[in-house]
Amino acid sequence: MPKSEKEPVSKRVKTASNASSVGTINDTGAIYKPKFSDSLSRVNNFSIIESTLREGEQFGNAFFTTEDKVKIAKALDDFGVEYIEITSPAASEQSRQDCITICNLGLKAKILTHVRCHMDDARIAVETGVDGLDVVIGTSSYLREFSHGKDMDYIIKQATEVITFIKSKGLEVRFSSEDSFRSDLVDLLNLYKTVDKLGVNRVGIADTVGCANPRQVYDLVKTLRGVVSCDIECHFHNDTGCAIANAYAALEAGATHIDTSVLGIGERNGITPLGGLCARMYVADKQYVMDKYDLHKLREVENLVAETVQIQVPFNNYITGYCAFTHKAGIHAKAILNNPSTYEILKPDDFGYVSIGHRLTGWNAVKNRVQQLGLKLSDDEVKEVTSQIKQLADLKPLGIEEVDTLLRVFHDKMNTPAED
Amino acid sequence: MPKSEKEPVSKRVKTASNASSVGTINDTGAIYKPKFSDSLSRVNNFSIIESTLREGEQFGNAFFTTEDKVKIAKALDDFGVEYIEITSPAASEQSRQDCITICNLGLKAKILTHVRCHMDDARIAVETGVDGLDVVIGTSSYLREFSHGKDMDYIIKQATEVITFIKSKGLEVRFSSEDSFRSDLVDLLNLYKTVDKLGVNRVGIADTVGCANPRQVYDLVKTLRGVVSCDIECHFHNDTGCAIANAYAALEAGATHIDTSVLGIGERNGITPLGGLCARMYVADKQYVMDKYDLHKLREVENLVAETVQIQVPFNNYITGYCAFTHKAGIHAKAILNNPSTYEILKPDDFGYVSIGHRLTGWNAVKNRVQQLGLKLSDDEVKEVTSQIKQLADLKPLGIEEVDTLLRVFHDKMNTPAED
Repeated sequence: MPKSEKEPVSKRVKTASNASSVGTINDTGAIYKPKFSDSLSRVNNFSIIESTLREGEQFGNAFFTTEDKVKIAKALDDFGVEYIEITSPAASEQSRQDCITICNLGLKAKILTHVRCHMDDARIAVETGVDGLDVVIGTSSYLREFSHGKDMDYIIKQATEVITFIKSKGLEVRFSSEDSFRSDLVDLLNLYKTVDKLGVNRVGIADTVGCANPRQVYDLVKTLRGVVSCDIECHFHNDTGCAIANAYAALEAGATHIDTSVLGIGERNGITPLGGLCARMYVADKQYVMDKYDLHKLREVENLVAETVQIQVPFNNYITGYCAFTHKAGIHAKAILNNPSTYEILKPDDFGYVSIGHRLTGWNAVKNRVQQLGLKLSDDEVKEVTSQIKQLADLKPLGIEEVDTLLRVFHDKMNTPAED
Repeated sequence: MPKSEKEPVSKRVKTASNASSVGTINDTGAIYKPKFSDSLSRVNNFSIIESTLREGEQFGNAFFTTEDKVKIAKALDDFGVEYIEITSPAASEQSRQDCITICNLGLKAKILTHVRCHMDDARIAVETGVDGLDVVIGTSSYLREFSHGKDMDYIIKQATEVITFIKSKGLEVRFSSEDSFRSDLVDLLNLYKTVDKLGVNRVGIADTVGCANPRQVYDLVKTLRGVVSCDIECHFHNDTGCAIANAYAALEAGATHIDTSVLGIGERNGITPLGGLCARMYVADKQYVMDKYDLHKLREVENLVAETVQIQVPFNNYITGYCAFTHKAGIHAKAILNNPSTYEILKPDDFGYVSIGHRLTGWNAVKNRVQQLGLKLSDDEVKEVTSQIKQLADLKPLGIEEVDTLLRVFHDKMNTPAED
């Protein structure tokens, strides 16, 4: 039964979202969900291939010891990713040993390794205990030039040998091109059609140079979806800032698997970040994402990786960045205090800090703080003290303690009976 | 001649790109350009409204002194942005004075300020010397709820008064909603149609909560493009990682102006970053972007803002991040050395560093370094020394100096006559 062997992992995941697929406004701002169910879309039925231990190892700062790799693999498994991809065992002897070590951890996640489309690499990889091989054509130059038949024949011959070999070992196999968006479309589709017939579990599309845009991605994936029956994996670099949006567009067009790394680390400025993808997909289907992944562990796994590769979590990082929930504008602070979901679609039940000690503050935000402190002031009085805060904050921003003191002093003054 | 008064700034910019609008592969990987010219698209005819001094002032860490504001405004002007948007002079007395100061700098960029749709704010703003007012409806709650006529009438009445007043002063005016993607579409279009007839220069769409995706953006902007004849400005928050991709989708659908801030600073994790947008647009039309903006000054303006708000430029920042051009994988390093444009679409003539002292290195990268050092080794010898590098690098990554020493020692050994 070759079909059942190939059942995509993503189908095994509970799809809790079917009942709520029609767009209505709820506390997660669900109007961002598609209004009509789209038969192509997999935004609520996808898998993550977490590649911190492969793509991430190509990050300039990365040097993972065996211990680092084990820690990161365990943390990713706890988080709930479906797959963990690790560096080719053909890269070095230590890489091979580490691959075996990770396969022996007994994780829930499937372990993949990423190898060139070459029998030498495939032979080494199948002996390590991995669940599958992500096979990639080594350089994009082939695909950019192979409109003449010889290269195409050569690739198909090599792909056939490698894929047949991996399948004979009972392992999952993905076949991917590099630089898919600069490849000749007809050659690319022809190649994928051929490997699909050979029984690969997935074909892969890669924006290796990080320059594709969402509409290109949607069009290519949608076209490919009509050509192959296997799953479709996508890999997006972030050089021009579209790695998350491209992943989303790919899922909308029927892709099934997205490659991520923690904080996006990888070649150059990296790929689709795990946390950023979770933010995006949470907006599309909160319940589905929360059922699959333990979002509370995101910060922990990010801190682990940041420490290991000696980088700082960027100030503007998705969800966990230190200012992800900071609001200053008066009109926004007011709305947030009334209803956090107004401006805070992500994790409204999480830490939501409203700063009021600055010159852009508004009296509604100050009024809320007055109430929190249990002070009694009329609206006119709140407006007056707001004006004082703004004057002081024009010189320098005030901490919450300073604002509180100011409010208490003002309150006492207002409520002290005039001397008579 | 009200039409000539309204001529969009973006039309004044030289469009150097018309001759090269058909997609061919060149050194910038121009297949990323649209293959066919699209009558809607403005990807090679847009303006930037740089909002570091408005949206950026709402960033948690921001407190700009007058001196800071002047420095940043001058740096942005040198970079070449078409507009600089600054905090409402109604926010505080110092904000008002700073607004006047910036208007008096004599910058090439037009100066805008951002005010609530309220006569009090408009009256203060028109006296500061700004070139235009970006008017916004203060809270999204109106637009989310005003399907009943009263609110709609109220908004239109207020908008009419404010817009008519600003136009009577001969200033540019933009009218924007907040939270446009969660607003009732019919009401939104009705409102924009009304203000278009009142003669606004631009209408604005804002993804205030940062949760729209590129296909939604494309659809809404395209629809709006068919409803209004004025320019269309877009403002995208980055909570779910689509701020750059959404800006690009908006331009594809006919938007004319994009809001940015340096490093994306703003409420929560911010908006479309200036540098990231430049990376994206450079890929779409390199010559157009380089003619308009002095990209060599990007790092300088980013460092200025980072220092002022006391943040670090993220490790993975577009173009200027310290690993934006770092490659490690052997197969990639080889291709880069042969032809930088293979994997490095951005600034191939800029700093492109290839690290070879790690265990994932390949012999082609090592061979190139051997040649750079003027050493003579056969391919077999290069493969042998590569194997040595990989063994050593399996223990710890090697610096370029260590690799060079290793290569020189190996070379000397190979070229020393055997003792006889």
